[in-house]
Amino acid sequence: MVRTVYVNGAYLPEGEAQVSIFDRGFLMADGVYEVTTVIDGKLIDFDGHLARLERSLGELDIANPMDRDQWLEVHRELVARNGLDQGMIYLQVTRGAPGDRDFVFPDPDTTAPTVVLFTQSNPALVDSPKAQRGIKVIAIDDLRWGRRDIKTVQLLYPSMGKMMAIRAGADDAWMVQDGTITEGTSNNAYIIKDGKIVTRALSNDILHGITRAAVLRFAREAQMPVEERSFTLEEAKAADEAFVTSASTFVMPVVDIDGAALGAGTPGPLAMRLREIYIEESRKAAI
Amino acid sequence: MVRTVYVNGAYLPEGEAQVSIFDRGFLMADGVYEVTTVIDGKLIDFDGHLARLERSLGELDIANPMDRDQWLEVHRELVARNGLDQGMIYLQVTRGAPGDRDFVFPDPDTTAPTVVLFTQSNPALVDSPKAQRGIKVIAIDDLRWGRRDIKTVQLLYPSMGKMMAIRAGADDAWMVQDGTITEGTSNNAYIIKDGKIVTRALSNDILHGITRAAVLRFAREAQMPVEERSFTLEEAKAADEAFVTSASTFVMPVVDIDGAALGAGTPGPLAMRLREIYIEESRKAAI
Repeated sequence: MVRTVYVNGAYLPEGEAQVSIFDRGFLMADGVYEVTTVIDGKLIDFDGHLARLERSLGELDIANPMDRDQWLEVHRELVARNGLDQGMIYLQVTRGAPGDRDFVFPDPDTTAPTVVLFTQSNPALVDSPKAQRGIKVIAIDDLRWGRRDIKTVQLLYPSMGKMMAIRAGADDAWMVQDGTITEGTSNNAYIIKDGKIVTRALSNDILHGITRAAVLRFAREAQMPVEERSFTLEEAKAADEAFVTSASTFVMPVVDIDGAALGAGTPGPLAMRLREIYIEESRKAAI
Repeated sequence: MVRTVYVNGAYLPEGEAQVSIFDRGFLMADGVYEVTTVIDGKLIDFDGHLARLERSLGELDIANPMDRDQWLEVHRELVARNGLDQGMIYLQVTRGAPGDRDFVFPDPDTTAPTVVLFTQSNPALVDSPKAQRGIKVIAIDDLRWGRRDIKTVQLLYPSMGKMMAIRAGADDAWMVQDGTITEGTSNNAYIIKDGKIVTRALSNDILHGITRAAVLRFAREAQMPVEERSFTLEEAKAADEAFVTSASTFVMPVVDIDGAALGAGTPGPLAMRLREIYIEESRKAAI
């Protein structure tokens, strides 16, 4: 099936979906994105993603090109046109395509932001074989820029990190800065020790995960103690359990860090319990 | 005049020049670039730029899609078709446009790199009014990623830095890391004290400027002492002269750093001499 995607107001077959070579997303990574998960054809935490989009755009002085209802309409239209049951909607806004390349921002009165959305189907999102066996991660240096709280398309290093992991026989990489873990290549990182969930506190060092916020809320509601602080690689290797969270993987157990198996080397009970709660609660609140 | 640009083998009017929304340059900043200056319709340091392109591509495991003669032909064809006398040729190579978004690199056997080139005319390149009066810079934190030696399109922070400078009434920003200047937003940075030229040594912290290499060679040939080492902001403010180098600005005098005028607050004699030598020698060697 040919996907229908959205580009600047038009619904197009994916093969015809293009942007100008002068788009600042293409020339300068001057853009931000969001990924909203779809289950049962409904949007998970849509308003959370929209709030973060608004914040990312604000940090970069890009005007939000649509209001909530317009964004919602495009999301729902893409779900309908593509018959999407389980998967993601990817959304990207760039500073647009002025007539030429320049480090100076173009005049927003003459250059409108570029808006692109497309769907990605993933029928194995909820009943994930990967979640049943858990993932292996390796540790790599965190070489990213200093504003990881802004969800920009500057994803080259995370992509390189993902490849380093695969080449090392692992699934993903956890990034280390000044001795402590920041996060995964496209997810927030957690360890569990003696029943306590530990994850780095919010700052410019990490993405302010929408799934992170929900999972921590559910954990606290389920009386699981949560500690928001930095943790070292050594601490992580000695943990009872570990997991990552992201919109597209929910809660994903980590069973191996740099070759050190955690606990029994299988997904931990608390991580699996959190995954269940997250999926159940998200389904209930989906719109 | 409508520019003719080059996109993946085709010469197109600029308004029709597009790339897929799935291009990894657009979605993930997974691409590199070069800017080659044109004077008198000829290319300055073409082979230097091509060598750096080859290195950048190699660091990212992207195959160079063309050999030297093919690159040269496209550059010359663009100069001819656009009647370019003075200006730049911008070149970008990305990892291409696989059918979907994925942090995992696409198979290079099925996804070819995207190649884009276009011209930018600038009749005031050599006789630059800006060079006659010098530029003002401000100091900002260097928040870029850790591999600035690879000339990637992750230019959001340099672009933000340029805007910070403009909003502060200056022309450009010098970036500071651990107390020392790394470089400008799109140029290498130098100070001159007691006749000695000081510029940061090559490392992953800065771009390995093609113009930098040429200017340092010319300086040494002209018996000007050169010291390649880090220097602080305080040292810079107390310098006799300062300047930046880049392919598109050659040697550009800096007359003010964070509001502190250097020397007489006008372009320094050594910087202007270096600019003259650079332009003269580059013209001679242009192809």
